[in-house]
Amino acid sequence: MKTHTEYLYFHTKKKREYLRITDKVEEIVRRSEVREGMVLVSAMHITAGVYVNDAESGLIDDIDRWLESLTPYGAYPQVQWPPPGQTGAVTATSAPYRHHETGEDNGDSHLKSLLVHHQVIVPITEGRLDLGTWQQVYYAEFDGQRRKRVVVKVMGA
Amino acid sequence: MKTHTEYLYFHTKKKREYLRITDKVEEIVRRSEVREGMVLVSAMHITAGVYVNDAESGLIDDIDRWLESLTPYGAYPQVQWPPPGQTGAVTATSAPYRHHETGEDNGDSHLKSLLVHHQVIVPITEGRLDLGTWQQVYYAEFDGQRRKRVVVKVMGA
Amino acid sequence: MKTHTEYLYFHTKKKREYLRITDKVEEIVRRSEVREGMVLVSAMHITAGVYVNDAESGLIDDIDRWLESLTPYGAYPQVQWPPPGQTGAVTATSAPYRHHETGEDNGDSHLKSLLVHHQVIVPITEGRLDLGTWQQVYYAEFDGQRRKRVVVKVMGA
Repeated sequence: MKTHTEYLYFHTKKKREYLRITDKVEEIVRRSEVREGMVLVSAMHITAGVYVNDAESGLIDDIDRWLESLTPYGAYPQVQWPPPGQTGAVTATSAPYRHHETGEDNGDSHLKSLLVHHQVIVPITEGRLDLGTWQQVYYAEFDGQRRKRVVVKVMGA
Repeated sequence: MKTHTEYLYFHTKKKREYLRITDKVEEIVRRSEVREGMVLVSAMHITAGVYVNDAESGLIDDIDRWLESLTPYGAYPQVQWPPPGQTGAVTATSAPYRHHETGEDNGDSHLKSLLVHHQVIVPITEGRLDLGTWQQVYYAEFDGQRRKRVVVKVMGA
Repeated sequence: MKTHTEYLYFHTKKKREYLRITDKVEEIVRRSEVREGMVLVSAMHITAGVYVNDAESGLIDDIDRWLESLTPYGAYPQVQWPPPGQTGAVTATSAPYRHHETGEDNGDSHLKSLLVHHQVIVPITEGRLDLGTWQQVYYAEFDGQRRKRVVVKVMGA
């Protein structure tokens, strides 16, 4: 059994950015000389994610808007739904994240990381990433403008 | 170390369907002759998911309604929460997905795939899937009525 | 190739609790004597999750409030967004979970499990969990006050 470990580094210009890293992962797998196995791609920070989806700029905008809707920056929406069995308006109390009491302002980034998930496993078959036609590996930065790290661990034969 | 790779194919009648695939995964593990290790079950499409949960039809309906609420078909809800520290109505601008500018109409399916996640790893112990009593592996189709593929990769000894 | 399997047991006092289990996972990896590889930490129940994030009590409160907002206990919010291209109030029909027709009352716990995801993989490098400075492994209980189990499977060399 072989293992091979490398780290990718990112320092984004914007707070939130979505970077396609399929080629970097593929290169690491090539260097590992693993023909059959798996590669784990896992963010080493708690305000970032790694996911597999489409390299289409409109969709990336949709993903970003969607994440911001469900986990808004700055203040946390405590949703009040209508009572059971009734139809009615949805109201919310917009309270600050409790995490911000520590002096941080990135409560939303932690929730975005949980929502997207911080890691994927890509199978390796005949020395290549065994991905579908449209599948691309993305690093999702939710609290950038600083140095961040992703571990890429290859395991197989 | 052994590895063993097979592919499952699905062609659902409906746009969204939830298919229990535990037995198919178990059969592949049996054929692999791996006694101790892991099996990766990973959708090869970006509008599908793989998850582990209950084989209860009411719950599957709940999952489907819940996904549709958070990632609605057709138009994207840009949520406006009350200002920080205030209570009030939640309003939204229902804007089309930008992804649809490409001619696609499946923006919601991509978000559902991200939300549910597209893969699981099941541990293999003594030649069997090491799942809890109620854990079942599901393929979640979010843009069906076409041929789709799932990779099942077994690794172990 | 080595594999090593252990199970962790939890019986929480509250319905929902978030337990840091990094040290327990690290001990199991030490006992496995694996120097390079991966460890899978996976809930064996469908109303629990395993995730990696920060050990900060305010953030844990934020995570709990956020999960309860998106997957409320008791009754399910069927959200009605404004029509495509329009801005307006968000309304909802608060209908009971269909899963509750079975006599259960934990529909929300299943959805929380899907949202957080029920497993993580931690890379093992030089015999240690290869985690970032702030990364901690958490067991998230969403339907506690009963005995629950997590499988920890180490694989490597």
